[in-house]
Amino acid sequence: MKKYLAITGGVGGAKLALGLTKILSKSEVAFLVNTGDDFEHMGLSISPDLDTLMYTLSGLSNVELGWGRGGETWRCLDAYKKLGGDSWFSLGDEDLAVHLRRTEMLKLGSSLSEVTADLFRHLGVDYSCWPMSDKPVRTQIETEAGRLEFQHYFVRDRCEHVVKSIHFVSSSVAYPTNNLLRYLEDPDLCGIIVCPSNPFLSVDPILSVHGLKEALIASKVPIVAVSPLINGQAVKGPTAKIMKELRLVLSPVSVAAHYQDFINGFILDESDAEHAVEITKSGMSVVTAQTLMASLDDRINLAQTAVNMCDELRGH
Amino acid sequence: MKKYLAITGGVGGAKLALGLTKILSKSEVAFLVNTGDDFEHMGLSISPDLDTLMYTLSGLSNVELGWGRGGETWRCLDAYKKLGGDSWFSLGDEDLAVHLRRTEMLKLGSSLSEVTADLFRHLGVDYSCWPMSDKPVRTQIETEAGRLEFQHYFVRDRCEHVVKSIHFVSSSVAYPTNNLLRYLEDPDLCGIIVCPSNPFLSVDPILSVHGLKEALIASKVPIVAVSPLINGQAVKGPTAKIMKELRLVLSPVSVAAHYQDFINGFILDESDAEHAVEITKSGMSVVTAQTLMASLDDRINLAQTAVNMCDELRGH
Repeated sequence: MKKYLAITGGVGGAKLALGLTKILSKSEVAFLVNTGDDFEHMGLSISPDLDTLMYTLSGLSNVELGWGRGGETWRCLDAYKKLGGDSWFSLGDEDLAVHLRRTEMLKLGSSLSEVTADLFRHLGVDYSCWPMSDKPVRTQIETEAGRLEFQHYFVRDRCEHVVKSIHFVSSSVAYPTNNLLRYLEDPDLCGIIVCPSNPFLSVDPILSVHGLKEALIASKVPIVAVSPLINGQAVKGPTAKIMKELRLVLSPVSVAAHYQDFINGFILDESDAEHAVEITKSGMSVVTAQTLMASLDDRINLAQTAVNMCDELRGH
Repeated sequence: MKKYLAITGGVGGAKLALGLTKILSKSEVAFLVNTGDDFEHMGLSISPDLDTLMYTLSGLSNVELGWGRGGETWRCLDAYKKLGGDSWFSLGDEDLAVHLRRTEMLKLGSSLSEVTADLFRHLGVDYSCWPMSDKPVRTQIETEAGRLEFQHYFVRDRCEHVVKSIHFVSSSVAYPTNNLLRYLEDPDLCGIIVCPSNPFLSVDPILSVHGLKEALIASKVPIVAVSPLINGQAVKGPTAKIMKELRLVLSPVSVAAHYQDFINGFILDESDAEHAVEITKSGMSVVTAQTLMASLDDRINLAQTAVNMCDELRGH
C-alpha cells in the first residue's frame, strides 16, 4: 500500500484534501492541520482550520460563505450580542455545537488529537486528521498597529494592518503528535503534499512545531508543494497582500524559495509556467497543472497530479 | 421608602416575584435566588433559578414549557447530540447565549453576582437579583439509588428516585454576598417574603449558606412565607413526592413547621384555611389568600397580600 500525508490550512487546502479523499482510501492518506489559528472566543476553544477540513470532508461546509456550516442559523450569536458579548467572530448555531463539545472534552482532559478524532468520526469522516500539535501554538502578527492575535488580525480587523513579521508563540515547546511521528516512519509512506494554503499563515505555523519539519525531512519521502498563486495572484485571502508587506516578489518563485529547504517538488499553475525554469534552478522538480479548484473534478485532478509527482520523484 | 426582600427558587417563586415588581419599584424590592441547582453542563456554567427569574422578569420566559425562553429553537443542541454530547438537559439556541456569556465572564474573573447583574441589565431587568452566594453550593440528593447531583435527580432522572436526605455541598464555606448583607441592614427594610418555592429544594439551600439565615433573622423585620401547597397538594414539581419520602405529613402545617424557626407570618391558600388555627399555635401569624397564580392579577394580588402582611406585622 502507498500512503501519503497532506499538510493543510484553511479553505484552499481543504479543497485539495477533498480531492485526495476521492482517490485515496482512509488507509492511504492522512492530514496534518494548522492549529496556529486556534483561539478562545466566547469562552470556547475554536480550531478554524480543523473545522474547515471537517466540514469540507463531511460535506457540511458552507460553500457560499467559505467558512462554517451550510444552512446555518445565528440565533445564539444574535442573543449573545444582545447580552453585550463580542460579535466580530460569527459562530452559527450548529457550528457552536462543535466548539462546545471540543471545549468540554478538552476541559475533561482529552487531547486536541483525541477531541478532533471524536468530532470527525461523529460527522462521518473516517480519515485521519491530526492537529499539528496537541500543545497550543498561537500565531501572532506583528503589524504597524502592534502585535495582534491571529484572529484579531485576520477576522476582526480583516487583515487591514501592514504585516511586519509573523510569530508562532510557544512553537518551541510544542511537539508533533505520536500519530504523525509513527506515520512518518511507516515504510509505506510515499510522499508528503503541501496543499495550496497560505505559506506564511497556514503552513509555516505547522513547520514551526518543534522538530516537525525535521521529522518530515527525515521521512526521506518526496515532499511536493502546490503553489497557492495563480497567474501570480492569490486565489483568496491575504497571501498576496502579506507577501508584498513582507517585501517578497509576488511570484510562485518566492513561494518555492520559501519552501526550498524541505520540498523536492513544486506544482505550478499553468498560467505561471514561465517561472518553471527559474524554480528548477533551485534543485527542485516542477510540474505545471491547473491548480484552480472550481469543481470537484478540478480537486480530484490536482490531487492526482500531486500524488503522481510524489510517485515519480520516489521512483527516481 | 419601604423596602422588601423576596427569597425565591424556580417557577413558582418567579411568578410571585413578577407580581412584586408590578407593585414595587426597583428601589423597593430585591430578590435573593437559589443557586444550589447550578451546575456545569456542556462545559457551561448554568444557573437555572437565576435564569428563570431573569426570563420571567424580562418577559422572555417560555410559558408553555415552564423553563427556558419563549420561541426557542434547538439547532445547537441537535447538532451537539449528533456529536455524541449528553442530551438530557435541553438548552435552546438563545438560552445558550446566556450560559456562554456567564461561563465566559466567570472564567474572566467576574463574580456570579457581577455576571448576574450584567445579564439581567442586558435583558432590561433593572431589579436587584442576587445569587444566594458567590461561592458555589451544590444541592445533592441522597436517594435509594445513591447520591445524585441535583440536576441528575431533577431533570435527567425526573425525580423518580426515593429521596432519603438532601445535602448542600460547600454551604458551610459559602457566604452571603455583601449586597444582601447591606440590604438587610438598611433601615428602610420592612419585610422579607419567602416565595412559594419548594422549601426543601429551593429555599433550604439558600438558608444553608453560612450565616445567611442568621442575617435574615438579625434584620428584625417580619419574615413571611407563602405556602407552596394548595389544598394540601403541590401546584407543580416534586414538593409533595419529596415530603412523603421524607415522611412529612403532606400539609401546609408541615411547611410552616419547617420554617418555624425564622418566619413570623404564613400565607395559607384559602383551600387550606382549616389549618390556620393549628399553624397559629406555633406562634406565627397566618392569613389566607388565593395563592394559585394563574393570571398576572393573581400574582399582583398575592404580592400585595405578602407586602401587606409584612407591613401589618411590622406595625405590631
